[in-house]
Amino acid sequence: MSNVLSYLVAARRCEVDELERLARTCKLVLTVGKLVHCLQQERGISNIYLASHGERYAALWPERVAASDAARLEFEEWLQSNEHADALSNGARLYTRIAFALHALDGLPQMRVDISALACSPAANSDRFKTLVGSLLALVFEAADVAVDPEISRLLIALFHLMQGKEFAGRERAAGAAAFAAGRITQEQAQTIEYHIDMQEQAFRRFESFAESFRAEWTAMQASLPLAELERMRRKLLTAHERALDDSLADAWYGCCSTRMDGLHQVEIHLADYVQAQCRQKIGELQRELGDHEQLFAHGAGIDSLAPLAAFSSSLGPGEMASGPLDGSVGPHLTQAIVDILRNQSERLQNLTQELATVRESLEERKLIERAKGILMIRQGLNEESAYRLLRQHAMNQNRRIAEVAQTILSLTEILPDAR
Amino acid sequence: MSNVLSYLVAARRCEVDELERLARTCKLVLTVGKLVHCLQQERGISNIYLASHGERYAALWPERVAASDAARLEFEEWLQSNEHADALSNGARLYTRIAFALHALDGLPQMRVDISALACSPAANSDRFKTLVGSLLALVFEAADVAVDPEISRLLIALFHLMQGKEFAGRERAAGAAAFAAGRITQEQAQTIEYHIDMQEQAFRRFESFAESFRAEWTAMQASLPLAELERMRRKLLTAHERALDDSLADAWYGCCSTRMDGLHQVEIHLADYVQAQCRQKIGELQRELGDHEQLFAHGAGIDSLAPLAAFSSSLGPGEMASGPLDGSVGPHLTQAIVDILRNQSERLQNLTQELATVRESLEERKLIERAKGILMIRQGLNEESAYRLLRQHAMNQNRRIAEVAQTILSLTEILPDAR
Repeated sequence: MSNVLSYLVAARRCEVDELERLARTCKLVLTVGKLVHCLQQERGISNIYLASHGERYAALWPERVAASDAARLEFEEWLQSNEHADALSNGARLYTRIAFALHALDGLPQMRVDISALACSPAANSDRFKTLVGSLLALVFEAADVAVDPEISRLLIALFHLMQGKEFAGRERAAGAAAFAAGRITQEQAQTIEYHIDMQEQAFRRFESFAESFRAEWTAMQASLPLAELERMRRKLLTAHERALDDSLADAWYGCCSTRMDGLHQVEIHLADYVQAQCRQKIGELQRELGDHEQLFAHGAGIDSLAPLAAFSSSLGPGEMASGPLDGSVGPHLTQAIVDILRNQSERLQNLTQELATVRESLEERKLIERAKGILMIRQGLNEESAYRLLRQHAMNQNRRIAEVAQTILSLTEILPDAR
Repeated sequence: MSNVLSYLVAARRCEVDELERLARTCKLVLTVGKLVHCLQQERGISNIYLASHGERYAALWPERVAASDAARLEFEEWLQSNEHADALSNGARLYTRIAFALHALDGLPQMRVDISALACSPAANSDRFKTLVGSLLALVFEAADVAVDPEISRLLIALFHLMQGKEFAGRERAAGAAAFAAGRITQEQAQTIEYHIDMQEQAFRRFESFAESFRAEWTAMQASLPLAELERMRRKLLTAHERALDDSLADAWYGCCSTRMDGLHQVEIHLADYVQAQCRQKIGELQRELGDHEQLFAHGAGIDSLAPLAAFSSSLGPGEMASGPLDGSVGPHLTQAIVDILRNQSERLQNLTQELATVRESLEERKLIERAKGILMIRQGLNEESAYRLLRQHAMNQNRRIAEVAQTILSLTEILPDAR
C-alpha cells in the first residue's frame, strides 16, 4: 500500500523534474533570442557600412559589435551556470545544437575583421550572419521540440516561429539596407527580398495558430508599427529594378524595419516570460498534489476499503490489456483515494501523451521540408529561395502539400544516396 | 573551441545516460516476466483446484504460491534497489504503472484466501489473475514505449508482444484446464478460448515482425513443442459443446500448454538478455567515441584549419533554417575533426529520431485499439472479446483498418463525454 503511494509520488517527482528542465530551457531560449536580436542589428548596420564603402554607420557599427558581444557573454555565462548534465530537456540533441551555435560564434571575430577591412561583400556578410543566426535558431527549434507538456510545447513552437519570422524580417532589413545604401538593386536581390517577405508571412501565420492566447498583444503590436511606410519603401525597392535608388532612404528603411524588429522582439520576450510562468504554475500545481499524496502516504499504510481495482481498469488505458469491466466482487481492494489518484494520474499522462503527438506533428512537417530543401541545395546547387520555390512549384503542379513533396524527395535520396 | 567540444561531450554523456536507464529498464522487464510466468502457473493450477472442488493439485498449489511469492519478492527487491528518481527511462508513466502493479499485487493474499476456501469460481479467479497480470504487462508496455534507440525499441516492442501472446496462451491454459477439470465446457467458454487463440496468433505475428534477429530461435522453439497434441486437445475442447469432457485429460492439457508456456518463457528470457547486451554494446561504442572526443578536447583548444561551417550546413538538418551551400570562403572555420564529429553527431541523432518515430507508430495503433476496446467495454457493458469482435466486425464491414475504427470511436467519445 505505502509502496503504491511511494511510486505515485516518484511519478509526480519525475514530472516536476521535467518541467524544471523545461523552465530552464525557456530561460535559455530567452537568452538566445536576445543574442539573435543583437546579431540581427549588427548584420544590418554592417551591411550598410559595407555597401556604403565605410561611409555610413562607421561610428554606430562598433556599438552594435559591443552589444552583440555583451549578449554573447550572457549566453555563454548562462551555459556555464547550467553545465551539469540533464540540466535541460532533450539533452543529447540540444547539446549538439549548442555545440553548433558555439562554434558558429567562434567565427564572429574573423567576420568583423573582414567587415572593418571592407574585405567582404554585403551579400557574403549576410550569408555569414545567416549561418550564425541559423545555428542559434536551430537551438531554439530543438528546445521547442520537447515532449513534456502539450500546452507549453505549443507556446515554444509559437515562439520558434515568431523568432524565425523575425529572422526573415531581419534578412529583409539587411538586404534592403544594402540595396538602398548601394543606390541600386539587382533582379536577384529583389527576388531574395520577396522570398524573405513570403517566409515572414508564413512564419507569423504559424505563430498565430500556435499562440491563440497572444493574439490580442500580437494585433496591438502590429497596429503600432509603421507598416504602411514599410510597404511603401518595399514597393520602391522592389520596383526599382536596375534604376537608381534614393540612397538617402537607407536610414529611413533601416529605422522603419528596426522599429518592427524591436516590436517583434518585445512580443518574443513577453511570450518567453509567459512560457516560463506557465512552467512555474504547472510545477506549483504538481507540487501541491505531491504534498497531498505524501500526506496520504503518511497515514496511508494499512487502509483498506472496498474500491475494486476494476473501477479504473478503463483508465489503465494503453498497455492495460487484460482488465474487463469486472464486477466489484473481484480484484484486490484499496482506498478510494488511491483509486482516484491512480485513475487521474494515468488518464492525465495518457492524454498528455496524445495531445503532444498532435502538437508536434507540425514540427515533423517542418523537419521534412527543411531536409528536402537542404538536399536540393546540395545536389542541385540551388540557393535557399530557389530550393523552396522548386518544392512549392512541384507541390502546386501535383496538387499536393509541400511536406508530401519533401517526403518524396527524401525517400528518393535514400534510394540514390548522396555522393558526399 | 574547447567549449564546442565540451558540449559535444555533454551530448554524448546524455546518450549514454539514456542507454544506462534503458538497460536498467530491461532488467526490470526480465524480473516482471519471471513474476508473470509464476502467476500464470499459479492461475492455471488454482483454476484446476477450484474446478475440481479441491480434489486436484491440492498439494501442487501451495508450491506455486510459494514460487509466485519468491518472484514477487525479487520484483520488489529490484524496485527498492533502483528507487532513485530517473533511474528508469520514461519515469512518470513507468512509475505510475509500477504503482498500479504493486497495488494489484496487494490483492494477491485475498485472492488466495478465496481459493483455499473454494470461495470463488474458476472464471472469477481467472479474471482476478487477468487483471493482475495485465497490470504487470502494462508496465512492460510502458517500458517498451521509450524513445531512445530505434533498434532497442524494436526489440522491446517484440518482447512486449511475446509476453502478451504468452499471456493469452496462459489464459487459454487456465480456461481449458477449468473446462477439462469440470468435465464440460459452455458455449461462452469455448468462444473465450477461441478469442485467446486468435489473440495469441496476432501477438506472435507482431513479435515475429519486430524480432527478425530471433526468427531462427523462435522457429526452433516452435518445432520443439507438442503443437499437434495441443491442437488435438483444442479440437476436443472446442467441439465438446455441452457434451461431457474427459476430465482425466485435465493434466494432459495442462502439461501440454505448460510445455509451450515454458518454451515461450525461455525465448522471452533470451530476448531480454539480448536487449540488455545490445544496450551494453551501444554504451561501449558511445563511450569509446566519448574518449576520442575528450582526447581531442585535451589538445583541441586553438586549432584552426580551413574547414568551412558550410561544409555541414546540410547536416544541421531540422531546425537549421538559414545556411545555404556557402562557398568555402565564408563562414567561421574550425578543424576538420570537429566538423566531422559535429556532422556525424547531428546526422546520427536526426536519423535516430526519425527511425524511432516509425518504430513507435505500431505502439500508437495498439494504444488506440486498447482505448477504444476499453470504452466499448465500459459503455456497452461488453467483455473484452466481444468488444474486440465488435471492432473487428466494424472494420471488416467498412473495409477499414481496426485502428481507424478505434480512432473514430475515440473521436466520437470526445463529442459524447463519458457519464462516469
